[in-house]
Amino acid sequence: MIDLYTARTPNGRKIAIMLEECGLDYRSIMVDIGQGEQFSAAFNRVNPNAKIPAIVDHAGEGGPVTVFESGAILEYLAMKSGRFLPHGAQARAACMSWLFWQVANIGPMFGQANHFANVASEKLPYAIERYSGEAARLVALTDRELSTREYLAGEYSIADIATYPWMKVAFDGVVKARPEIAGKGTNIRRWLADIGARPAVARGMAMDIETA
Amino acid sequence: MIDLYTARTPNGRKIAIMLEECGLDYRSIMVDIGQGEQFSAAFNRVNPNAKIPAIVDHAGEGGPVTVFESGAILEYLAMKSGRFLPHGAQARAACMSWLFWQVANIGPMFGQANHFANVASEKLPYAIERYSGEAARLVALTDRELSTREYLAGEYSIADIATYPWMKVAFDGVVKARPEIAGKGTNIRRWLADIGARPAVARGMAMDIETA
Repeated sequence: MIDLYTARTPNGRKIAIMLEECGLDYRSIMVDIGQGEQFSAAFNRVNPNAKIPAIVDHAGEGGPVTVFESGAILEYLAMKSGRFLPHGAQARAACMSWLFWQVANIGPMFGQANHFANVASEKLPYAIERYSGEAARLVALTDRELSTREYLAGEYSIADIATYPWMKVAFDGVVKARPEIAGKGTNIRRWLADIGARPAVARGMAMDIETA
Repeated sequence: MIDLYTARTPNGRKIAIMLEECGLDYRSIMVDIGQGEQFSAAFNRVNPNAKIPAIVDHAGEGGPVTVFESGAILEYLAMKSGRFLPHGAQARAACMSWLFWQVANIGPMFGQANHFANVASEKLPYAIERYSGEAARLVALTDRELSTREYLAGEYSIADIATYPWMKVAFDGVVKARPEIAGKGTNIRRWLADIGARPAVARGMAMDIETA
């Protein structure tokens, strides 16, 4: 049994999708980030960085295994299940490159773009332009890459699982804010539809799962 | 032979340190990011995201292996060399958690803090406070973690190699900007001194290496 500490955010949904794709036995423990539950002493023993998602795999090798950071969790579950991370050196390196690209670029930069466009208490044109421009650059790059192959790293992998929930929630807004940089996103639309049609992805996105 | 595409930045130095630590045969190809060389067609075939570092391992399994994103490169080199990534499930998960934590938190947030404090064409107190505060939170967290063990994930690992060049360049400024959040960083100072005393780290930080 895997305990998944999560919330209804793109990073939380990534892991629910992966667990559903792998058919692993898990239960979701919702962390109410609106109420600051991520700062509780109990949760900080799981993730000292006070962010969801995190997992505790009670059936880990050698005892319970704790993993935090969505990218690390996806890699751990791929290694455990033998799925969605290619084995050959070239394909594995491509998948890990795009996985790290998601967590170091799409995640933080889409997050900052959303903050300054929708959350910040001040309207700051400089910051709005900085992050909407970077988000649009990342969308244009993704679309260009997906024009040459079906998925980010060739076959469907943890790189797509990491990127899908962020792109799903942000794509329309990013294109609308900076169409001159983002472009039309034709290939992204096809990729979103392909991935969205997977039953495990639908279940993970809904987080329609037993809650502890 | 490994080609390392790099520049004299924290992310560039990470990989030079790892290659030096592992004693792997490599040559550095400096990418002049001040002149925009990262946008060249030749470099974009190595990393379509147009950022250093990236590597091409000409002695890869099954042919040349291309890897981009500093976290993916560190993981690849650790798998190739069998070093600086523990083998047991619990220790490996801890190391990967802290590695992903660095690239998804320390890297982007220290980067934004530096941008708004030192680079941006406008002084924006809201943005300066947002990122200096987050950088200081990450410093306080790092110091608290290092009070319980010698290195981020127990033994010296790619998690430390990833974090060291960023902490080395930013620590004093982060503490000075927000001492009430960052604290004194006593344990970070000890950790910086321990790692800085490693000859391979000194060589990697200097990037005192053959340049193609």
